[in-house]
Amino acid sequence: MTTLAMIEAAARRLDGHIRRTPLLSSPFLDKIAGRRILVKPECLQHTGSFKARGGWSALSAMDEATRKRGVIAYSSGNHAQGVARAATEHGAPSVILMPSDAPQLKIDNTRALGAEVVLYDRATEDRDQIGADLSKQRNLTLVKPYDDPQVIAGQGTCGLEIAEQVAEIGVTQAEVLVNCGGGGLSSGIALALEGHAPGLLVRPCEPVGFDDVKRSLEAGQIVRNKATSGSICDAILTPSPGVITFPILQRLCGPGLVVPEADALRAMAQAFLRLKIVTEPGGAISLAAALYHGDQIDADTVIVVATGGNVGADVFAQALETL
Amino acid sequence: MTTLAMIEAAARRLDGHIRRTPLLSSPFLDKIAGRRILVKPECLQHTGSFKARGGWSALSAMDEATRKRGVIAYSSGNHAQGVARAATEHGAPSVILMPSDAPQLKIDNTRALGAEVVLYDRATEDRDQIGADLSKQRNLTLVKPYDDPQVIAGQGTCGLEIAEQVAEIGVTQAEVLVNCGGGGLSSGIALALEGHAPGLLVRPCEPVGFDDVKRSLEAGQIVRNKATSGSICDAILTPSPGVITFPILQRLCGPGLVVPEADALRAMAQAFLRLKIVTEPGGAISLAAALYHGDQIDADTVIVVATGGNVGADVFAQALETL
Repeated sequence: MTTLAMIEAAARRLDGHIRRTPLLSSPFLDKIAGRRILVKPECLQHTGSFKARGGWSALSAMDEATRKRGVIAYSSGNHAQGVARAATEHGAPSVILMPSDAPQLKIDNTRALGAEVVLYDRATEDRDQIGADLSKQRNLTLVKPYDDPQVIAGQGTCGLEIAEQVAEIGVTQAEVLVNCGGGGLSSGIALALEGHAPGLLVRPCEPVGFDDVKRSLEAGQIVRNKATSGSICDAILTPSPGVITFPILQRLCGPGLVVPEADALRAMAQAFLRLKIVTEPGGAISLAAALYHGDQIDADTVIVVATGGNVGADVFAQALETL
Repeated sequence: MTTLAMIEAAARRLDGHIRRTPLLSSPFLDKIAGRRILVKPECLQHTGSFKARGGWSALSAMDEATRKRGVIAYSSGNHAQGVARAATEHGAPSVILMPSDAPQLKIDNTRALGAEVVLYDRATEDRDQIGADLSKQRNLTLVKPYDDPQVIAGQGTCGLEIAEQVAEIGVTQAEVLVNCGGGGLSSGIALALEGHAPGLLVRPCEPVGFDDVKRSLEAGQIVRNKATSGSICDAILTPSPGVITFPILQRLCGPGLVVPEADALRAMAQAFLRLKIVTEPGGAISLAAALYHGDQIDADTVIVVATGGNVGADVFAQALETL
């Protein structure tokens, strides 16, 4: 189980390898929201998302012999790049298992970051079987995207930064809106804030139709989404909260916020116009909640974690058309 | 004349009011350029450009009585917003004289930042006369966009940050590519680096057809552009280097780099894709020089100052089409 001490230890390992992202703001966004909005742009993180934190934490926590044998991850997106970068910079081999229909750009990026990309056919091949076989043959260690204590500790370093940054400007009460898939980032931030900024409450944000975390928190047990595809918010389409993350979410976070994906596009356009940052749809749900669903928020100050910016030009152009 | 001590004093006045922008990088950009590229995203600065520094420096350097009477500036763009924000946050009135055909968004933004916008007709009215009359009637102080020692000192704080940031990563030799209009930012950064990072050389960057700074440096005297409009790089289309800035540029900077504006659009697309930042054409000439004109650069490490991000969705969409 991830502890505050593990997050603080991860922060020391990440120092110099991960960007301390700033807190951005705009009077224009405050006006739309009717309250103070502070945006933490994790899209500016290495590899374009907060996943670089968890990847680095996991790799740097391994003993040298394990790391040298290499790691494996399943991901078509941000986790793939985070693990690939961390492995390569640690001199460790990495294998990323990706569906053969993943966008060519993401495949190319993951390879360029030094990973061996193994493609599989979603329709005819069993990802878990291929992964298990590869791990066994080559003695690779699996780095899970969220249900891993060291990955959660790495994501939690984002929460340590938030705690320091709000202290600098005298904010002690706020809601922290976090885009939520499996809950690694939300739970990591929540643990960090519990220790260092207990007046800040994490509220997981999800797109309509993929609100497993909100419903799980309401039900008091893990419930699943009906679908795991069919949204432009691809970065956060996990089937359900994790077995490690859920108890943390349950103890520290909520209630969840649910936002139509069309609002994510509008929020991306505002982030372009007012903050000059590039966000992906799954990275802008939190901003959309702050800007357009403020009736579900109580705090005078909202911290919005803009979790990622790995978006294609076509979807971004679509967002700009909402202006 | 601006001195290093004035820049350091400006930095103390700016502290807490201006963002310390990070240094971003991407292995993908390094690969295109064939050398190490570090990008200082001043587009993430308040008001979307470095001009917030000079505006704050000028307003905060005034005596209280002068400031209370108010300030005036001529600008259709970034300087307008920098001065408007600084004045409003100092409780001072500001008048910004803008051409009536300026983009509505820029007029609206400048008003929203608290300025009184006075529109004039470019064809039939004399801007300088209107400005002089208004200044006299209301006893306003003119804040020039670059030929003002305190404005240069404010822009120079960007150079102090660069000096600190390269020291942290052990870089002592580099070329610093700065988009250049009247030379306020280039000269301010150069003065700061002369004092704190003398191995770093500022190289002013301009679009083809508006290379007054490059030609002035070559001629050893101020020469003018033939045109002052007709480029998408609107932020840096000044007729010539300033009388205060030019001697500094001459002593410390150059040679200039000149880049076709089409390359600025390509660089904007790369900044979107690899750094997740929004740059305007006049803010991306420096990145274009680093990425596509490296044959004119000697250093192994290049610092690119991405000076601004105030761009409309239409021009940004045009940039994305280059991908």
